[in-house]
Amino acid sequence: MRIALGLEYDGRAFCGWQSQPGGCGAQDALEAALTRMAGHPVRVAAAGRTDAGVHALSQVVHFDSEVARPQNAWVRGVNAFLPPSIRVQWAQEVDAEFHARFSAERRSYQYWLQLSPVAPAVFAGKVGWYHRQLDLDAMREAAALLPGEHDFSAFRAAECQAKSPIKTLYQADIRRHGDFILFEFCASAFLHHMVRNLVGSLIYVGNGNFAPTWMGELLQQRDRTRAAPTFMPDGLYLAGVHYDPRWGLPVCARSLIPM
Amino acid sequence: MRIALGLEYDGRAFCGWQSQPGGCGAQDALEAALTRMAGHPVRVAAAGRTDAGVHALSQVVHFDSEVARPQNAWVRGVNAFLPPSIRVQWAQEVDAEFHARFSAERRSYQYWLQLSPVAPAVFAGKVGWYHRQLDLDAMREAAALLPGEHDFSAFRAAECQAKSPIKTLYQADIRRHGDFILFEFCASAFLHHMVRNLVGSLIYVGNGNFAPTWMGELLQQRDRTRAAPTFMPDGLYLAGVHYDPRWGLPVCARSLIPM
Repeated sequence: MRIALGLEYDGRAFCGWQSQPGGCGAQDALEAALTRMAGHPVRVAAAGRTDAGVHALSQVVHFDSEVARPQNAWVRGVNAFLPPSIRVQWAQEVDAEFHARFSAERRSYQYWLQLSPVAPAVFAGKVGWYHRQLDLDAMREAAALLPGEHDFSAFRAAECQAKSPIKTLYQADIRRHGDFILFEFCASAFLHHMVRNLVGSLIYVGNGNFAPTWMGELLQQRDRTRAAPTFMPDGLYLAGVHYDPRWGLPVCARSLIPM
Repeated sequence: MRIALGLEYDGRAFCGWQSQPGGCGAQDALEAALTRMAGHPVRVAAAGRTDAGVHALSQVVHFDSEVARPQNAWVRGVNAFLPPSIRVQWAQEVDAEFHARFSAERRSYQYWLQLSPVAPAVFAGKVGWYHRQLDLDAMREAAALLPGEHDFSAFRAAECQAKSPIKTLYQADIRRHGDFILFEFCASAFLHHMVRNLVGSLIYVGNGNFAPTWMGELLQQRDRTRAAPTFMPDGLYLAGVHYDPRWGLPVCARSLIPM
């Protein structure tokens, strides 16, 4: 029996999603709790491997187990074994063909950026921070150059393991919500650090360092060294994973703050 | 020279506002940083003493110092000596008659409550949580009975040190924002645990345990044992302190999430 789970976690409580020898990954916490509930060792596969400090509002994983447990056991029962910084949102039995990573058709990320002279204290680690105002119109003009199928090498970390730097970006929206700027990206898949690198370069447009057309030049040049440095992980959230409706999963997209 | 500061802090990082022998109070962190900046021991007086786990978006304090420092030193300089969980938002020289606590005319609190079957992970400790939906109309009807001058003994902690349980409540509003309910209270002053006790009883109305008129009965009976238990501190924020305009302070009211 294959079971899919929806997960929310605070990236600051873990050293990233992936299992680590010391057990500090979010995956380690989840597998330990599932193993206790199942009574046998459980390994999970996840839709997206979030880095250290990156959060998830809607990570999706799957695992296999032959033990019969009510659906509720995989939510409330497993949550009782988890630290408060990670919660199972839902559980659903899925077809044995379903794979959390390989069946995923698109991923959505949110990046929340607070604009204020002083860094956030309550939301420290939960939002990115920039110390002065940004020109949103210019940033939106730059972001409008991003959707489509492109070689995103300019925004790819050196250690990225993806087979190809060519990805299809479906959405690159920028909205303002009080002192916060919300970046929303949706793509077939993302390269390592791609969202943080895009946000960094969009900020370089917003603060007047570069014109909006620079974003198109970066795409064409495919040179990581020309783009802005990787922006801090604090405001980054895996917000949704999108699957074909035939898998019958719940809608897996959430927002940090209701919009 | 008397200086007033506006402060934001994450209540989870401290054992409450007040200075403690072990130095775990937010006040201890601030006084240590101010002492470093001033070069002499600094003690502060605060508008409100928040409990362990209670946050501040806009705490106000004052202190005295004869050393000449640019205004910026009391913000950016002091922030460099503080942990990221507490930030000075602004600093302003004030009249020697000003007192952060005794000059305050009203205090505002926000209580953020998340309604969801599963507890929040990213906002764990930052919002209160209730596992099912609440009847907001009934809660608003109950809250409407609260404003005015009343004996709030029904909502007063046993250890409360206030001279009188009679306070004037100016505002008791309830708004919905997606999965969040925002309670906003403004009063001349608050009794110990008063907001958490009010929120607990309003939830007892919202979940159908009691009719809205129960809130009026609680006020009249003045019996703490009849009201609901003290609700969790997680979602409580000191959001504003209001002074006479003659003190010339910045507007000291903020919201956790822009509304």
